[in-house]
Amino acid sequence: MLLLKAGGGEKINWDYIALDLKEILKKETVILLHGANKVRDKIAKKLKYPTKIIVSPSGIPSVLTDNKAIDIFLMTYAGLVNKRIVEKLQGYQINAVGLCGVDGRLFEGKRKKAILASYGQKIKVINNTYTGKIEKFNSHLIKILIQSGYTPVITPPGISDENKIINFDSDLVLSLIAKELNIKKIVVLFEEKGLLKDFNDKKSLIKKIDKNKLDNFLKYAQDRMKKKILGIKKVFQETKVEKVFFGDGTIKNPIFKALKGVGTVIC
Amino acid sequence: MLLLKAGGGEKINWDYIALDLKEILKKETVILLHGANKVRDKIAKKLKYPTKIIVSPSGIPSVLTDNKAIDIFLMTYAGLVNKRIVEKLQGYQINAVGLCGVDGRLFEGKRKKAILASYGQKIKVINNTYTGKIEKFNSHLIKILIQSGYTPVITPPGISDENKIINFDSDLVLSLIAKELNIKKIVVLFEEKGLLKDFNDKKSLIKKIDKNKLDNFLKYAQDRMKKKILGIKKVFQETKVEKVFFGDGTIKNPIFKALKGVGTVIC
Repeated sequence: MLLLKAGGGEKINWDYIALDLKEILKKETVILLHGANKVRDKIAKKLKYPTKIIVSPSGIPSVLTDNKAIDIFLMTYAGLVNKRIVEKLQGYQINAVGLCGVDGRLFEGKRKKAILASYGQKIKVINNTYTGKIEKFNSHLIKILIQSGYTPVITPPGISDENKIINFDSDLVLSLIAKELNIKKIVVLFEEKGLLKDFNDKKSLIKKIDKNKLDNFLKYAQDRMKKKILGIKKVFQETKVEKVFFGDGTIKNPIFKALKGVGTVIC
Repeated sequence: MLLLKAGGGEKINWDYIALDLKEILKKETVILLHGANKVRDKIAKKLKYPTKIIVSPSGIPSVLTDNKAIDIFLMTYAGLVNKRIVEKLQGYQINAVGLCGVDGRLFEGKRKKAILASYGQKIKVINNTYTGKIEKFNSHLIKILIQSGYTPVITPPGISDENKIINFDSDLVLSLIAKELNIKKIVVLFEEKGLLKDFNDKKSLIKKIDKNKLDNFLKYAQDRMKKKILGIKKVFQETKVEKVFFGDGTIKNPIFKALKGVGTVIC
């Protein structure tokens, strides 16, 4: 089984992805995990409730998610973007089913009711957040869907053990999915060619990373890319995944090219 | 199996519904179909793209759905409302899974690319609409979910045979669901006690309707209620459903009370 993660950028070409998936599905099953951050930010702005980014004391940025932000999350991730992807895949005869982490308790975890955010030199406690750390991936639902010929298209948010909807970082759940579904390879598509040494220099692509030396590459990573690398580090620590492929989701044959090593290969 | 339809009103009490469902699920399986029109209208207004209602030449009102309206549909029906209901049910240990009609081609039909609307004495053709008539309910997905212990929570929109997302009227698909799942009883909950003789007089509840005389009651029905009655007429014409119960979704024990005949019973 292939685990495909696609970013939430608007330049991601879902026709190209669907064409590759159609071929791949002749030989193996696929689970697709997607984001929707760009669409969320746009809708949040239109609803006059713009996305707020905070930075943890250790320097990792994340979205500040109160319950109103969860509403916008549901509208965009679980609603608009998830179903438009399902529509697109259905157009290529892929029998997709869209789910978020609340459905069948797919992604279950602990809610952090308060989090720390650093503002310059100061560290502030922020209450009433609906964000959390996913601890369980309840793969039962995914397995029965796949066994019945469906292709699951899954997205945040998830659900807490106290039954509240919580935001989580989809990069940090790759290891849970891979472990539960016994996945050997992961393809991650976004709007870059792969991991760049210099964020501003498109030609600085890193072709290969030794899975044991991922820490050395954290310094090249900007913002969200940092979490991607942390997520992949967990994958190699905790699962039997052999290779992870970072590739460009905006070009033709995005999955096949990533698998051929056109982007960044971590193994 | 019980088919429960709940309207999209904001006074519908999902805690009360969940409490009843939890009891019912000990004895039989349930499929839940819901709307979200009130939330959709609110969000549509906030997004400065308010819901437009048109009236067919035969006097039936419906929502004018272009592709942008479909986006808002997805945000509110398939996203916000569907997942908040799933969250609520999960809180009562009901393992709910939310789906819209696009997932697994649950509700498939023919898109009407142009529709007729009456404006006073004039009839106008409106193009580029994404609305349709659902012809197939692909129950396979629902059956495997129910067999595996999940409670499906389903909602519009659906998908056309040409793979476009289309709006449809959920009152008019009850017969398709009932036929496919061999359902014998349907409970319909909304923000009224039942069918009223006089829309403005809460005390004018019609207690019982002969299923063969539904046409006589169309005259009492206002707006959306008209479609409800037309939908129920189809149910009795096309399925083996024995009784349909209209009841109040805002009160305690809404399902049990409806089943006891506190609202309007059609049989």
